[in-house]
Order: sequence, then C-alpha cells, then structure tokens
Amino acid sequence: MLIGQLESGPMRFGQLRDAVAGISEKMLTQTLRGLERDGFVTRRSDAEISPQVEYRLTPLGHSVLEPLAAVRSWAQHHINDIERSRLAFEKD
Amino acid sequence: MLIGQLESGPMRFGQLRDAVAGISEKMLTQTLRGLERDGFVTRRSDAEISPQVEYRLTPLGHSVLEPLAAVRSWAQHHINDIERSRLAFEKD
Repeated sequence: MLIGQLESGPMRFGQLRDAVAGISEKMLTQTLRGLERDGFVTRRSDAEISPQVEYRLTPLGHSVLEPLAAVRSWAQHHINDIERSRLAFEKD
Repeated sequence: MLIGQLESGPMRFGQLRDAVAGISEKMLTQTLRGLERDGFVTRRSDAEISPQVEYRLTPLGHSVLEPLAAVRSWAQHHINDIERSRLAFEKD
C-alpha cells in the first residue's frame, strides 16, 4: 500500500517505485494521481532545492492509516485460516 | 458488504439478494461462493426443516467484522473530504 509507504515521510517517485515491488511506472503514476485526486497525498516540487517532485501524506492520508493497519493486521493473523479454507473447499 | 449483512444471523439467498440493493443473482452467487471458499461463510441446508439453503458467518467471518467496521466508519466520516478534494482536483 502506497499510503503505508508514505507514513514515515515524503518520498520521490523513484523511491516509491523501488519500495513497491513489481509495480509498473504506469500503475504507480495512475495510483498516485488517484490518491492525490482523493486528497490522501500531495504532490510538490521544490524547484529551489531540486526539480524532483515529492509525494507526502495529507492529514486525510494520515487519518486512514489506522483503519488500514487494522485490516492489514487482521489479514496477517488470518491468512493461514483463509488458505486452509481454500484448500478444503477445492477438495470438496 | 455481505459479511455485514450476516452479522445479525443466518440469512437465505433471497433475503441477501433483497438486502443488497442492485446486486444481480449471478454476482451474489459468485460472491457468496468466494466468501465460502475463503472461510468467511458457511452454506447449509436443513432438509428436515426446509429445502432452502442458509448462509451464516463462521468464526473467521465474525472476526473480520471489527476491522471492516473501522474502515466503514472512517469512510462515513471522511466521504465529504474526499468529494471536496475531487472537485478541487478537477478544477485545477
């Protein structure tokens, strides 16, 4: 989750691309644009320092971290239950 | 969310179809099958009482209610922020 990646602070496009294994630049661009449109992320370039664009969480972005963490934690605890259920379901 | 519908007890296919506005029978069948495969729901018919099939949450299904409620509550509180952001984004 891109939002989770930005929890510890602003990141540049290349840093985000490297942090999310397997994501294409096209998908990353579209996802960031969607997150910006929905108000979770801001996109800023600080021309004096560097021409590169930085992405950072907005207050809205920070506020969604908690429910997302609850879902992620649930999933980590129960992924084995789901896989066991799928195996049993396929056998029936 | 179908899982949320089953929180208060078992329901039959027709009851679920009526409870989730706009869902097609094909989509409801596929979704229930997926929830059963992943272990969130059981599908049981009690031939002595009635030939109809009943769907009910498993313990795993009950356990996911809490994180889902956290996301739903967050969304209800912030949907206006997202819509405001989208309007502003479209204007830029």
